[in-house]
Amino acid sequence: MSLEQTSYPKALHRSAYKAQWGKNKKHRNIKLQWYLDTMSDPKIEEVLAPLRASVKEQGDLVRKLKAEGAPDLDVKKAVAELKTRKKLLEDKELSLTPNITFDRAKMEDLLKRRFFFDQSFAIYGGITGQFDFGPMGCAFKANLLQLWRQFFVLEEQMLEVDCSILTPEPVLKASGHVDRFADLMVKDTKTGECFRLDHLIKAHLEKISADKKTAQEVKDDCQDIIIKLDGMNKNEMAAVMQKFNMKSPLTGNDLTEPIEFNLMFATQIGPSGLIKGFLRPETAQGIFVNFKRLLEFNQGKLPFAAAQIGNAFRNEISPRSGLIRVREFTMAEIEHFCDPKEKSHPKFGNVRNTEMLLYSACNQMDGKPAERVTIGSAVDKRLVANETLGYFMARIQQFLVKSGVDPNRLRFRQHMANEMAHYACDCWDAECLTSYGWIECVGCADRSAYDLTQHTQATGVRLAAEKKLPEPKIVDVCEATPNKGILGKTFKKDAKAITDALAALSLDEVEALGQKLEGAGAYDLHIGDQTFNVNKDMVDVKKYQKTVHVEEIIPSVIEPSFGVGRVMYAIFEHNFKQREGDEQRTFLSLPAVVAPLKCSVLPLSSNTEFMPFVKRLSAGLTKVDVSHKVDDSSGSIGRRYARTDEIAIPYGITIDFDTLKEPHSVTLRERDSMGQVRIPVSKSSS
Amino acid sequence: MSLEQTSYPKALHRSAYKAQWGKNKKHRNIKLQWYLDTMSDPKIEEVLAPLRASVKEQGDLVRKLKAEGAPDLDVKKAVAELKTRKKLLEDKELSLTPNITFDRAKMEDLLKRRFFFDQSFAIYGGITGQFDFGPMGCAFKANLLQLWRQFFVLEEQMLEVDCSILTPEPVLKASGHVDRFADLMVKDTKTGECFRLDHLIKAHLEKISADKKTAQEVKDDCQDIIIKLDGMNKNEMAAVMQKFNMKSPLTGNDLTEPIEFNLMFATQIGPSGLIKGFLRPETAQGIFVNFKRLLEFNQGKLPFAAAQIGNAFRNEISPRSGLIRVREFTMAEIEHFCDPKEKSHPKFGNVRNTEMLLYSACNQMDGKPAERVTIGSAVDKRLVANETLGYFMARIQQFLVKSGVDPNRLRFRQHMANEMAHYACDCWDAECLTSYGWIECVGCADRSAYDLTQHTQATGVRLAAEKKLPEPKIVDVCEATPNKGILGKTFKKDAKAITDALAALSLDEVEALGQKLEGAGAYDLHIGDQTFNVNKDMVDVKKYQKTVHVEEIIPSVIEPSFGVGRVMYAIFEHNFKQREGDEQRTFLSLPAVVAPLKCSVLPLSSNTEFMPFVKRLSAGLTKVDVSHKVDDSSGSIGRRYARTDEIAIPYGITIDFDTLKEPHSVTLRERDSMGQVRIPVSKSSS
Repeated sequence: MSLEQTSYPKALHRSAYKAQWGKNKKHRNIKLQWYLDTMSDPKIEEVLAPLRASVKEQGDLVRKLKAEGAPDLDVKKAVAELKTRKKLLEDKELSLTPNITFDRAKMEDLLKRRFFFDQSFAIYGGITGQFDFGPMGCAFKANLLQLWRQFFVLEEQMLEVDCSILTPEPVLKASGHVDRFADLMVKDTKTGECFRLDHLIKAHLEKISADKKTAQEVKDDCQDIIIKLDGMNKNEMAAVMQKFNMKSPLTGNDLTEPIEFNLMFATQIGPSGLIKGFLRPETAQGIFVNFKRLLEFNQGKLPFAAAQIGNAFRNEISPRSGLIRVREFTMAEIEHFCDPKEKSHPKFGNVRNTEMLLYSACNQMDGKPAERVTIGSAVDKRLVANETLGYFMARIQQFLVKSGVDPNRLRFRQHMANEMAHYACDCWDAECLTSYGWIECVGCADRSAYDLTQHTQATGVRLAAEKKLPEPKIVDVCEATPNKGILGKTFKKDAKAITDALAALSLDEVEALGQKLEGAGAYDLHIGDQTFNVNKDMVDVKKYQKTVHVEEIIPSVIEPSFGVGRVMYAIFEHNFKQREGDEQRTFLSLPAVVAPLKCSVLPLSSNTEFMPFVKRLSAGLTKVDVSHKVDDSSGSIGRRYARTDEIAIPYGITIDFDTLKEPHSVTLRERDSMGQVRIPVSKSSS
Repeated sequence: MSLEQTSYPKALHRSAYKAQWGKNKKHRNIKLQWYLDTMSDPKIEEVLAPLRASVKEQGDLVRKLKAEGAPDLDVKKAVAELKTRKKLLEDKELSLTPNITFDRAKMEDLLKRRFFFDQSFAIYGGITGQFDFGPMGCAFKANLLQLWRQFFVLEEQMLEVDCSILTPEPVLKASGHVDRFADLMVKDTKTGECFRLDHLIKAHLEKISADKKTAQEVKDDCQDIIIKLDGMNKNEMAAVMQKFNMKSPLTGNDLTEPIEFNLMFATQIGPSGLIKGFLRPETAQGIFVNFKRLLEFNQGKLPFAAAQIGNAFRNEISPRSGLIRVREFTMAEIEHFCDPKEKSHPKFGNVRNTEMLLYSACNQMDGKPAERVTIGSAVDKRLVANETLGYFMARIQQFLVKSGVDPNRLRFRQHMANEMAHYACDCWDAECLTSYGWIECVGCADRSAYDLTQHTQATGVRLAAEKKLPEPKIVDVCEATPNKGILGKTFKKDAKAITDALAALSLDEVEALGQKLEGAGAYDLHIGDQTFNVNKDMVDVKKYQKTVHVEEIIPSVIEPSFGVGRVMYAIFEHNFKQREGDEQRTFLSLPAVVAPLKCSVLPLSSNTEFMPFVKRLSAGLTKVDVSHKVDDSSGSIGRRYARTDEIAIPYGITIDFDTLKEPHSVTLRERDSMGQVRIPVSKSSS
């Protein structure tokens, strides 16, 4: 077979060698079986039963309080307790599943040593929460994004956009980020060192609890506060600080009062210092402010989806957990705009039978485990709100698994009513199980009409679509038509403002105007501080009926939002492996489609006769756009295989003494199974 | 032919239909001919001769002044005058070339109407110098970057990285950006409105010159200042402002003194406000600070190249000219690290015969035109400094032409000594001719060892490589070995600082230390404000010789740097066309490889029998990753063709009544020639 004649995917994927390399797939199936077994193991269920009951008890209390319209604070506290019980249940569940032997330090060593990524500006001491991707991390990321583009943008014919990062304040004021996108922090009054307040309180109280000298009463109090911390507001936290006389854990200095710290990076656009701007905290807003143009591009038709890949920034008070909580990150977001009354999806049939692990809000409140169901039945049962949301959830799962996420360590968790963002009406997070616990990698929210409504209100530009009515409708119209001539003569330079003000009146206001003019013959029009007396000659109010064929609707938005760095991190963890019998030989089993390089070319030794074959193969691979690495360094072939396994190269071509014989042939080695087959190098690639 | 069986590029490029579509290529060749003719037209040369002589006269003066070591200011003024004369020559040259009928307003209308790009946050009034790319602009950009990645990163096996945008101050202090990356501006003292000072002075003096009432003497003075403006410093410009009593052109208010305005966007990293940071003004620095890791990744070997695609930011005082001068832009940069004494390139032979239009510094000073020569001869004649620089210049040209830049409107202009950046030792810009004149789209500079040296000095981390010596060398070594026991006993907690200080001594300092200890028996070691008296027992100074096999070198950096937005803009201009005989029918002839969508699928009419074929074709194209657009709207087929031509779709598949007959067939239409051929739809794609 010639590598040049046949394109890469055929040569390396669809070939007969697949049979030989099928082992790994089988392995996956075994693990899947394992997971399902665990879930229904009666012994484990016996241990979990009391914890499940405890969650359900609290869940029922929350439901009851809500139904009774209990005070907000009571609900909040009950919810905080519910969360803690849920956490206890989840920790127990995890501790009972068979150990996944995973050594994070070893993986991090590999990722750093082979420069997948590392802290930014390391030679300057580094900056917390910022990372640079080296050649292997960057290529993995680029491949992942390219796959994303094919999987979503191309496949679904989405409208991809590329919008500005620097965003002027009014846009983020309208979106709610200027007012609500904040965390509480306190500062060391002398050094200015900052601490995220909830982290600080938790650490302080845990320290007190752990101290043997602490009285049991105080310990209980600490535990109680830790449980309720999540639901506390600024004043409550301030009271806790005071009660325990908290100081800076680093210096012992006094701390300031809690400060609401906005997580956006601020800057000034232009030299005047007059235009305040922020680095965007998400890519979504760029799509919303372009909604009108996008709708136009789609010839006015709903539904359609827009997408954007790009960087966003959050000035975290204390970044942590490697790639998981960072200050600068890449997002890939989709905004699917549709009729709020029509959220079916034409391609839902394609995914209907996809099995997914769903952890519904209801099950979370009842202390029940996540359930494996088809997305079709979940939508039928209204567990998932609508077909479009369900369609995207299934597609997200397909994408994640194709990219290397272990399907056994993936679930979709529904937000409970109290944790939903202010704009969302239903939200499911794709969560991956990692050594940091279950982490949110993709959000999938129904944002309803929130964003378009906000930007419409802020700008006066109607971000709406027209929907054809099932049948024409007759509506009442009330219009105020100014007589510009008379207005101009009477009010001179103010005439335009008056005309504009009249045009901006609501239907009710026009009716009131009509009645006043009809009755008193005049009307006081207020513009800012000024009042203008307009009379019947100046304005003509007409009431009439007209037939309309369309109605204006503000579309609903369904938003799948990918945290690219988090997805990458989960894939790293799920694909970090050690060779059986040799724990030092670690490797990454990234799927070929996202692997940084697809192939290695290795001469068996430094024998000069091998070189022409290396060159020809490398040139042939370049010609068909197969990324590869030639390693003709002096290490043994085994050592060089190990080096390429570390950087996740799925296939290796080795030139050996048999290659020199006619017909020329090479060995092709697969990374995960280490299986090798011999294939001919046809003359055309030489 | 089945669209599914054959992969896209073969089906649409290498097929027999190419012959029919060759027309356009022919057209290009004709234009090339035209350009070469113009260059040697004796009548045009006659008109240009005095202008050429005037440039040469001034160029010779500059050379003379430099040779004589004349005062800086005199040289600067002579250079400014040289630039003006060059500009006159260039304007004349352009005015004499046959008109390229180009209607910028019409092109901008198309680009905006079909949402290739538009001003960001338009519904909020827009922000100058920021643009959002809509679906067609974004897809074009993504394809262009993908091609770049294949053309440079894959083909040359470069190490691509993806580094942070937020950059702490010390990094940009070392690179020179904090101190030197500034423009002069003045502010309206009342409104705070800012003006770029050189723009303001030029506009003001031009207005005076244009006034009929102005005395000839004053007019001459104004012209003289305009000529010299480019070389003026802050004080000189301030004097001009005062002399002409300049006020704000908008309000007539007073203006402030000139202010040096740094073009970087400042922000604070972390919540403390203590870490000052900037949005990076170029992507290059991210590569330099990672040099050590990259060299390690390359197993310590030189040469190698790293690359980065990403956004950079410059807070322009007055952005202008659409995509050409903006505040937020995408760059694609390559840093090729090599031995400063060895800048040959193994693949130079591949490009040696590439013809390029080179406009050398020497020709610019002599008033001579750019010359079309092979890059091989240019390097042989030392016109281009070395093979590596030449290799990249040729590859840049290949890439630009492949992406759609008209080769007749592309030249490489060498920086004259006085315009070179502080770090560069040779620099050639790839310039494209547009309606804004010749604009720099790609820079290709030899930055020498500047950046690595700067970051080494700032951090103390040696950013250097090891080079094997041709033969081992014997060198003198002088080492200070501390006796840690005695130091510890004597100096207690200061002992470590003393040990560190001893290790940091230079060779000369160690020798001085040795002499002192030998003579006086003791030595005063200064650390900060403190002085420590160390004696012979505490430190042992040894002098000896050793054989070394390697020497440390700081690599030279050759940097091709692409302004992606500018390249895109040049491609737009070079591919904006009007149909012969119908000026209203405009289209974009983007090459298929970068076109936003590759193919349209159009049913001839709304006949329902066409729909199954539309669906099957669309599914088939999706399966082989061919981006396409189905347009089943009600317009005539001609109108729909025109719409797809506007968004640069190179190929259109039409389903008509003949499609319904067996064997099923469709028409395939090519955009530029509007030629159509009939091809079968095999059963496999249905």
